Amino acid sequence: MVEYLQLKLCRLKLILSKENILAFEKSFRTNFVNSLPGFKSASLIGTTSSEGRTNLTIFSSVIHIGANPPLMGFLMRPVTVERHTYSNIKETNCFTINHINQNIFKLAHQTSARYKKNTSEFDACGFTPEYSETIKAPYVKESKIKIGLKFLEEQEIKSNRTIFIVGEIQEIILPDKVVLADGLIDLETAETIAISNLDSYHKTNKIARLSYAKPGIEPNEI
Amino acid sequence: MVEYLQLKLCRLKLILSKENILAFEKSFRTNFVNSLPGFKSASLIGTTSSEGRTNLTIFSSVIHIGANPPLMGFLMRPVTVERHTYSNIKETNCFTINHINQNIFKLAHQTSARYKKNTSEFDACGFTPEYSETIKAPYVKESKIKIGLKFLEEQEIKSNRTIFIVGEIQEIILPDKVVLADGLIDLETAETIAISNLDSYHKTNKIARLSYAKPGIEPNEI
Repeated sequence: MVEYLQLKLCRLKLILSKENILAFEKSFRTNFVNSLPGFKSASLIGTTSSEGRTNLTIFSSVIHIGANPPLMGFLMRPVTVERHTYSNIKETNCFTINHINQNIFKLAHQTSARYKKNTSEFDACGFTPEYSETIKAPYVKESKIKIGLKFLEEQEIKSNRTIFIVGEIQEIILPDKVVLADGLIDLETAETIAISNLDSYHKTNKIARLSYAKPGIEPNEI
Repeated sequence: MVEYLQLKLCRLKLILSKENILAFEKSFRTNFVNSLPGFKSASLIGTTSSEGRTNLTIFSSVIHIGANPPLMGFLMRPVTVERHTYSNIKETNCFTINHINQNIFKLAHQTSARYKKNTSEFDACGFTPEYSETIKAPYVKESKIKIGLKFLEEQEIKSNRTIFIVGEIQEIILPDKVVLADGLIDLETAETIAISNLDSYHKTNKIARLSYAKPGIEPNEI
């Protein structure tokens, strides 16, 4: 009985070492480690080659870099194999970030399949390219929040040769109704979704928005 | 009537330029640009100075870097002013990432207040430091998914002097029941939440998990 209780207690909490993780079967490890950052942004990144071949790929690593100048960035896997997003950005110096919403997440997931360079994921996955005069790269018509960026810099992460790409926002296209009076974008009205791991899609429900935090003062819901 | 209709049509979609964004009032611009990446991970990063002064700060920029070796990273604001998280990581070569759940998001938000260096956010905000033998940095007892990392490298983003920090996972502490048979961590069972902007907290509902994408084959729900 004591042994059984100890077994149960010990099963409540897992403590895993780096060695445990490295000993996992590969797909188990990929799922596990990709889940560790929590919920991630869900974006389609649109690019074009200098000859006008469009490319569209799902990314879950887009983050905020700064508001002035307005910068965003994302992480790319090593370019030890051909990466069309990377070569297109280097050729044309621009890319678009397009939010994934509830209506398009299945098509968006399909862009992660390994298509050949002469196949556009726009055609293969059922998206419509949309162009503005500001950015050469294609936007995704079916996305509701679209951001056009100029490539600014890349930083190689030496530890595993992934590449962090930084762009400056040149243009934003979004529904008027999702921008609140103080600048916040209401992502739930825009039906933007979140990703966990590389394959799990989630909608959200706001718990609360909190006031600016100051020492000694409990934040209010705003 | 025609004019009214045109006005309505034009209000449906906003097209904003970089100049429009730069002309926004500062707090409007901050809210707006911080909303643009979509939903973000919600983490508390725990550190300690070489003298044992603990620090805890909320971050929404934690991303996956690689599964083998297991790496995670996050972006820090420029160190032009004193950043305790940064100086502690450089002093002790380690940090912890702790998921924010529904029960602790208000306390977690409070860690963004500007406390003095000799005030620990653990004490000031009501968190309990928890230690393991593997990592010198403190975990957050009230968090359910906790990751201990060794500092590996930093890359300065030249465009605005923010710093991308990369760590190697040394240890993970999490409830046994949230790890599914194929390695996926069920973040909803762990009650991990997501952030938009810097102040809006969201719980999630899974829409679907999709099979590995292959060209020409529609993904299934798994």
